[in-house]
Amino acid sequence: MMLWTVKAVGLGVVALALSLELLAWFLRRHRSGRTLNEVLFFPSELACVEQVFNPSSPHFPSSCSPSCPLPHGVETSFSRLLRRILSATSSLDLCVFSFSNMDLRRAVLALQSKGVTIRVLTDKEYAAITGSQIGVLRKAGICVRCDTASVYMHHKFAVVDSRLLITGSLNWTLTAVQSNKENILITEEPELVQPFIQEFHRLWVDNDPARHRYRASEPR
Amino acid sequence: MMLWTVKAVGLGVVALALSLELLAWFLRRHRSGRTLNEVLFFPSELACVEQVFNPSSPHFPSSCSPSCPLPHGVETSFSRLLRRILSATSSLDLCVFSFSNMDLRRAVLALQSKGVTIRVLTDKEYAAITGSQIGVLRKAGICVRCDTASVYMHHKFAVVDSRLLITGSLNWTLTAVQSNKENILITEEPELVQPFIQEFHRLWVDNDPARHRYRASEPR
Repeated sequence: MMLWTVKAVGLGVVALALSLELLAWFLRRHRSGRTLNEVLFFPSELACVEQVFNPSSPHFPSSCSPSCPLPHGVETSFSRLLRRILSATSSLDLCVFSFSNMDLRRAVLALQSKGVTIRVLTDKEYAAITGSQIGVLRKAGICVRCDTASVYMHHKFAVVDSRLLITGSLNWTLTAVQSNKENILITEEPELVQPFIQEFHRLWVDNDPARHRYRASEPR
Repeated sequence: MMLWTVKAVGLGVVALALSLELLAWFLRRHRSGRTLNEVLFFPSELACVEQVFNPSSPHFPSSCSPSCPLPHGVETSFSRLLRRILSATSSLDLCVFSFSNMDLRRAVLALQSKGVTIRVLTDKEYAAITGSQIGVLRKAGICVRCDTASVYMHHKFAVVDSRLLITGSLNWTLTAVQSNKENILITEEPELVQPFIQEFHRLWVDNDPARHRYRASEPR
C-alpha cells in the first residue's frame, strides 16, 4: 500500500514537472523569438562612420583617413541606422521622399556591390533637385521608379530582406541626420512590416514606366 | 491494489490536467494581452468624418448637413486616425512639424473639452505659416511649445494616454491626408512607445520658455 502511495505521488509529480517544463520551454521560445523593436532619435551626434563600412578594421587610423577630425568609435543614432541598412543580405526596398545623404548613398551602393537586390521608389520632383543622389543610384544600375500620381511621395521607409522595417520622419538627407529633430522606428513585428511590404509592392507596380507608356497609347 | 492503481492514475491525470490548464491560461493571457499594431496609408479616400465626432448619431443626415456632398458611413485611413486620436481619455502629447488640418484641430479641441490634458510641441517656423492651426490651439488654452534648437522640429508623432503611439510620415495637414503618399503606424508595443514618451518629455523640458528666459538673463 505504501509502495502504491509513493507511485501515485511520484506519477503526479512527474506529470506536473513535465508540464512545467513544457511551460518553461514555451516561455523561453517566446523570449528568444522576440521581435526586434528599436527607436532612434536625431539629430545624431557627429562621429566618423568609416568603421560601420569597414568593421574588420576597427582601429583608427587604419579604417579612416588620419586627418579625419570626427570622433571615432562612438555609436550614434546614425551609425545604428547605417548598420541596420547594411545588414541586408538579399533585398532592400527603399521608399523615400528625399535622398541626398552621401553616407546613405554609400551604404546603398555597398549593398549593391554585395549583390543585394535594391529597388528605390521616390518623389518625381525631389529626385531632380540639387544634391539628390537618385541620379547616382540610377547610373550605378539601381532600379529607381518615381511616383507620379500624388502631390508628394512623402514616405520615408525601407524594408530590409522583406523582414525588417525602418520607418519614421527622417528623409535621407544630411540636414535630417545632423540638424533636425527626427525619429526612426525599426521593427521586425510582422503586423507592422507586412503592410509596408504590400504598400511598396503596390506603389512599385503602379509606377512601372511600362504601364505608363501603355496608358499613354490608349485611345483618347 | 486495484483501488490504489485507480487512485494513482487519477492523481496523475489530475496533475496533468492542472498543468495543461496552467499552460492554456498562459496562452490565453498572452493572446488577449496582445499589443495593438496598425498601419494606415494615405492619401485617404474622401469621406464625411462627422460620424467619427458624433458616433451616437450614426445615420446621415442626422449627423451631418443634408448638403454634405461626401460619401457617408465609409471607414477610411483618416477616419481610423481620427478615432485613434479621439480615444484619448487622459492625455494627448502631440509633437508635430506642421499642423493645419481643420478636422485634426477639431479632434484636439474635442479632447480638450472632454478634459483631456493636451501638450503640443511644434516647429517654430511652421507654427506661424498661413493656415497653421497652432494659434487657434493656443487661443483655446492649449499649452503649446516651439522647438528652437534645431533646423526643423520634423517629428510627426502623438502619444495617447501614455500608452498608444501614433507616428509616421504624415504631417497634420490637408495635403498630407488627401494628396500625398504617407504612412501612419499605430502601436501599443512598450518598446516602441516608451522611447517616444521619453523623447517628448525631453523636448518639452528643453523648450520650456521659462528656461529660455533664465538662459537669456545669464551673464554673458
